[in-house]
Amino acid sequence: MSNIKQTFNQIIDGITPVDRSLSDQIQRRLDNLTKPKGSLGRLERLALKYMLIKSDINPRLPKKRVFVFAADHGVTEEGVSAFPKEVTFQMVANFLAQGAGINVLARHVGADVKVIDIGVDAKLSHLDGLIHKKVLWGTKNMVKGPAMDYEDAIRAIMVGAEVAKEAIESGIDVLCTGEMGIGNTTASSAITSVLCQKRPEDVTGRGTGIDDKALNRKIEIIKKAIDVNSPDPKNPIDVLSKVGGLEIAGICGLILMASYLKTPVVIDGFISTAGALVAYKLNPLVKDYIFAGHVSVEQGHRVQLNHIGLNPILDLDLRLGEGTGAVLATGIIEAGLKIYLEMATFDDANVTPGENQH
Amino acid sequence: MSNIKQTFNQIIDGITPVDRSLSDQIQRRLDNLTKPKGSLGRLERLALKYMLIKSDINPRLPKKRVFVFAADHGVTEEGVSAFPKEVTFQMVANFLAQGAGINVLARHVGADVKVIDIGVDAKLSHLDGLIHKKVLWGTKNMVKGPAMDYEDAIRAIMVGAEVAKEAIESGIDVLCTGEMGIGNTTASSAITSVLCQKRPEDVTGRGTGIDDKALNRKIEIIKKAIDVNSPDPKNPIDVLSKVGGLEIAGICGLILMASYLKTPVVIDGFISTAGALVAYKLNPLVKDYIFAGHVSVEQGHRVQLNHIGLNPILDLDLRLGEGTGAVLATGIIEAGLKIYLEMATFDDANVTPGENQH
Repeated sequence: MSNIKQTFNQIIDGITPVDRSLSDQIQRRLDNLTKPKGSLGRLERLALKYMLIKSDINPRLPKKRVFVFAADHGVTEEGVSAFPKEVTFQMVANFLAQGAGINVLARHVGADVKVIDIGVDAKLSHLDGLIHKKVLWGTKNMVKGPAMDYEDAIRAIMVGAEVAKEAIESGIDVLCTGEMGIGNTTASSAITSVLCQKRPEDVTGRGTGIDDKALNRKIEIIKKAIDVNSPDPKNPIDVLSKVGGLEIAGICGLILMASYLKTPVVIDGFISTAGALVAYKLNPLVKDYIFAGHVSVEQGHRVQLNHIGLNPILDLDLRLGEGTGAVLATGIIEAGLKIYLEMATFDDANVTPGENQH
Repeated sequence: MSNIKQTFNQIIDGITPVDRSLSDQIQRRLDNLTKPKGSLGRLERLALKYMLIKSDINPRLPKKRVFVFAADHGVTEEGVSAFPKEVTFQMVANFLAQGAGINVLARHVGADVKVIDIGVDAKLSHLDGLIHKKVLWGTKNMVKGPAMDYEDAIRAIMVGAEVAKEAIESGIDVLCTGEMGIGNTTASSAITSVLCQKRPEDVTGRGTGIDDKALNRKIEIIKKAIDVNSPDPKNPIDVLSKVGGLEIAGICGLILMASYLKTPVVIDGFISTAGALVAYKLNPLVKDYIFAGHVSVEQGHRVQLNHIGLNPILDLDLRLGEGTGAVLATGIIEAGLKIYLEMATFDDANVTPGENQH
């Protein structure tokens, strides 16, 4: 374990700020394109952020990949979800058969999908096309004690870091985060409550669609889990291990490695942003490498985004997870890059610049 | 003129409500897809709206076209824009050379671009690839009298209606509205002020990017134009002709014909929505055929959208026009259709439905 902890610390300490030295040069080109200055708003800012992360003023169109981390949650035995636990592994099979929402939307934007068993409570070793990285057979029930050991949380983080590293080294330009895990909004609300110092009722929502009665029970379960475990808000790994989940740890690790390797990462909704929150608490510099794909209807997502200081690209009332909002947002980021790369300048097109253009 | 007026009235009177009889059948399929009920939010609602408009439960992926109506505005002689008037025809050439923002974004979503000279104050008859439908060589200065005659406004509306009809008959599934016309936020603010009964200062923005002093002058110009012309808020064509523009009329006509022929139309920002507002005042049923592509930063756009009762798909701080926000939004609508068409159902995938699923 000491070896893995050392690597983990090296990654966290090795994250450096985005180099902004190319900023003026990129902005100058954006301002010379045949449009009023700044009139493509966020498309321009997304392109600028992307190019600064990559330190590249002439980037190719991005190769995109979404990582769906799948894991189970012991807390499901408390009845916190509208779906039974076996849906986690059933959906893994659905991802591999290309039938899920994330498959459809990834195809739509030209991203590939990788599914990682990081902690599903079912034997999946026979499944082809799945990345087999099971750290545990699901977490334990967090109302009875820690969801997992501190060391297991670090192992799961390192799984996310490893898959990110492999992808980046193989030429993927943008990583998207996604997840599947019945019960994981419960864990995400618990993490968010502790790390953002908010009451559980202010950061807990209906997840896959529970009724009022079940929502109240879910809030009580989260309170009890926090009470039983006393996670230390100053120690993000303590929080992650006691009231978190393995897929959330994987997402955290993916974000840390993407930041370390100066690669843009697009996060999805509430669960992904719980992973981002843990990464942010480990090193706030990760923020500069993250694009918030969308804001979910899940209560608490806006709290997380505001806490980190991220402005979501899309707001489409999504609450599916899997990475759906993240991949959809890559289409918008790519549109921004194409604006930068393909539009004519005032000189090219013999168009008279506006009085405020230069 | 009596002939054209008759056709115009036939279109307006011929617009009928969207047939909602397929609604339950479509919703049933959406609810049977392997996701929590409603969890893809607006993607599902956009797909439903699209299919109801077309009365088609098994639509093909849409062929998309954006129409950029170009026209000049006599009011530019009052100095209301940051750009000189010749930029209108310079940008027309840029569109035809594929160098403008709309060209880049249309390619990104797979839409084609048609540019219509509906009223540019320059000889453009030599330009190949342009649709030549000049109604007037620009409008007159509306602070000195009506921008155009009532009959010219109807002629310009019918240009929009004709190009829409041709496109739909040739197999285009979705029409997007766009425009180019230096000075056209001034006309749009005037129209919006009158038709939404708001003070000019509440619906006037910086357009292509004027400073505070020019903004105040622009507001005064709009007040003066309304004062001089006394447009009748109960007569949308009176308003359009006195303080509007030819490209706004074209957009209005395109929306009317799309609604008449039960074809989805995606509108762009402030100027497009001014056209939509005129169409809506002529027949409020058009609302059911319109998708609001985005909400612009231009003050007044939100006022227009609320007045019609449209909820924008994107919010990306755009203020370029040309149809850029509209085409970008078609990518989101198409994503919704793909969800409906391509996702597995619970039965297909052997996934256990949630407790609230049926």
